[in-house]
Amino acid sequence: MPENNISRTELSALGEFGLIEHLTKHIKLYHASTVKGVGDDTAVIDVGDHYLLATTDLLIEGIHFDLTYTPLKHLGYKAIVVNLSDIAAMNGKPTQVMVGLSVSNRYSVEALSELYEGILAACKKYKVDLVGGDTTSSPSGLFLSITALGTVAKNTVCYRHTARANDLVCVSGDLGASYMGLLLFEREKAVFINDPTMQPDLAGKEYILQRQLKPEPRFDIIHALLNAGVKPTAMIDISDGLASEILHLCKESKTGCRLFEEKLPIDPITINSADEFGIQPSTAAMNGGEDYELLFTISLDDFEKIKTIPGVTIIGHITDEEDGVQLVTSGGSLVPIKAQGWNHMK
Amino acid sequence: MPENNISRTELSALGEFGLIEHLTKHIKLYHASTVKGVGDDTAVIDVGDHYLLATTDLLIEGIHFDLTYTPLKHLGYKAIVVNLSDIAAMNGKPTQVMVGLSVSNRYSVEALSELYEGILAACKKYKVDLVGGDTTSSPSGLFLSITALGTVAKNTVCYRHTARANDLVCVSGDLGASYMGLLLFEREKAVFINDPTMQPDLAGKEYILQRQLKPEPRFDIIHALLNAGVKPTAMIDISDGLASEILHLCKESKTGCRLFEEKLPIDPITINSADEFGIQPSTAAMNGGEDYELLFTISLDDFEKIKTIPGVTIIGHITDEEDGVQLVTSGGSLVPIKAQGWNHMK
Repeated sequence: MPENNISRTELSALGEFGLIEHLTKHIKLYHASTVKGVGDDTAVIDVGDHYLLATTDLLIEGIHFDLTYTPLKHLGYKAIVVNLSDIAAMNGKPTQVMVGLSVSNRYSVEALSELYEGILAACKKYKVDLVGGDTTSSPSGLFLSITALGTVAKNTVCYRHTARANDLVCVSGDLGASYMGLLLFEREKAVFINDPTMQPDLAGKEYILQRQLKPEPRFDIIHALLNAGVKPTAMIDISDGLASEILHLCKESKTGCRLFEEKLPIDPITINSADEFGIQPSTAAMNGGEDYELLFTISLDDFEKIKTIPGVTIIGHITDEEDGVQLVTSGGSLVPIKAQGWNHMK
Repeated sequence: MPENNISRTELSALGEFGLIEHLTKHIKLYHASTVKGVGDDTAVIDVGDHYLLATTDLLIEGIHFDLTYTPLKHLGYKAIVVNLSDIAAMNGKPTQVMVGLSVSNRYSVEALSELYEGILAACKKYKVDLVGGDTTSSPSGLFLSITALGTVAKNTVCYRHTARANDLVCVSGDLGASYMGLLLFEREKAVFINDPTMQPDLAGKEYILQRQLKPEPRFDIIHALLNAGVKPTAMIDISDGLASEILHLCKESKTGCRLFEEKLPIDPITINSADEFGIQPSTAAMNGGEDYELLFTISLDDFEKIKTIPGVTIIGHITDEEDGVQLVTSGGSLVPIKAQGWNHMK
């Protein structure tokens, strides 16, 4: 801690994850009920016969969303589901949410009603209760803070830190689509700014746009795993891109891993769009982010069971820590996986 | 919900409380575990053998704080305790907090470390565990979103809606000091902007400045009430001013009340400062806000017990709803209490 204000370290010097580590390293815990604090998808709190899960996420105008192409109703919906995705990643069930909303007077009552329509639509779909929050003005822009609560049985909670060597690495759904949707929106926005008479050209791209605008948490996968009798050995949701999340999972579990580029599940429209933009589809899948799919590891013993679950792809396996976190490219070379996720601090 | 964007209602037309009412009126609850949703100091959730309390508050630069006179360490401390005050108001015990932090790159790592030092100092003092959060950048300014969790026994929880006619109305501590501290800071800031060689003149005003910069939640009162065997019939914390809070309490309880101006507990330094600024001390007490004292009602039967608790003042009594929410002025006239709290929406 500095004694004065002479020394100044820029936030960009640490990056988002470095900053979080720096700020949270002095945390002390006082309650035995705190089973897991900072460092997983949610906090885990022992409330007696089960665990309570708690997570909070910020969505900031100009950083996390652009209202030029994000309808307020979709924004409200997405704000809720990205938090529910964290509950899913603990193998939990969401129960309540709280909404902090700060807006400038540029917004009308009708605009906020639309936002709330989206919030309540997500609450209805996933049967969660909106139980509180705070509403205030902001000097400029729109600022959303969502807190989600959930429950999980003590013997089924899934952490990030419990993967073991030889476990299989799985992902749900497909990756990179949301990122390609974002690039497409950004391109059409630039076109529109250049020439406001131009209409956006989005035909045939509905899938990637929907993945960007209206992600869904994968409780269907949570249920399918439960029904198949598979308990993941570790789990995390993919919000910052597969590369970032597998690094978190391996770091917390003190393991390495080997993922296979050719196994990455990527939708044809994502591949097609990536080609258009001149980027590798696997780059979109590894580093794109906002997929809100589940990345999880399972015991080799569950190999036969996992094959019966549609929408789950085995993309590699966990190794010892000293083997590193590696991607086997389609060409057969071994490349260390590096990622910063979305480094909004830059 | 409008079918198009032609109709536009300004936020100022509804005000903060009107807007909250408008946005939350369509909420549906799906879980039996949700004992109390929107409409009290915290949400109340049944987790088995006790209730979980959950509350969230936003603190926005330029709206809730001014870094010209608010050290970041104090801001961090205050951000936590104002949330803990909500837990106190439910007669609860705080256990965990989560911190959402959004900052522009104008802030250095050292500045955020100071903020966190204050956050962790409050966590240490009140023995709460910092268990999670979110850290991201903002286009400008500093946004804080704090979520606090707590516990309360099912038979000791105190709501806003359970006051009854003839109950005594009590407040802890004294009122209006924080508001006078704010006015003093604002005055000295204006002086400084006019002439940067001027030093702030704050001597003898430490009490009101401290009340503004470093409020403390009144868990000492919660413990004293417990020890004295007094369970409040209703309780709320005073964040938006006594007038605003007694209106909430009476509205939710479907009662009226009669408060006595001459009974309002006001510190001599507050009175002195109010005189300097040419405002009525009782106006500061009724409408100032940010006192973070407790406003509660007790049964007449507890009159003898409450007298033994230092720092509690009886300021009036609850009446039937049709009698209205009234202040008996020092001159003996009856004035309806009106308040909007801090209407940041204007």
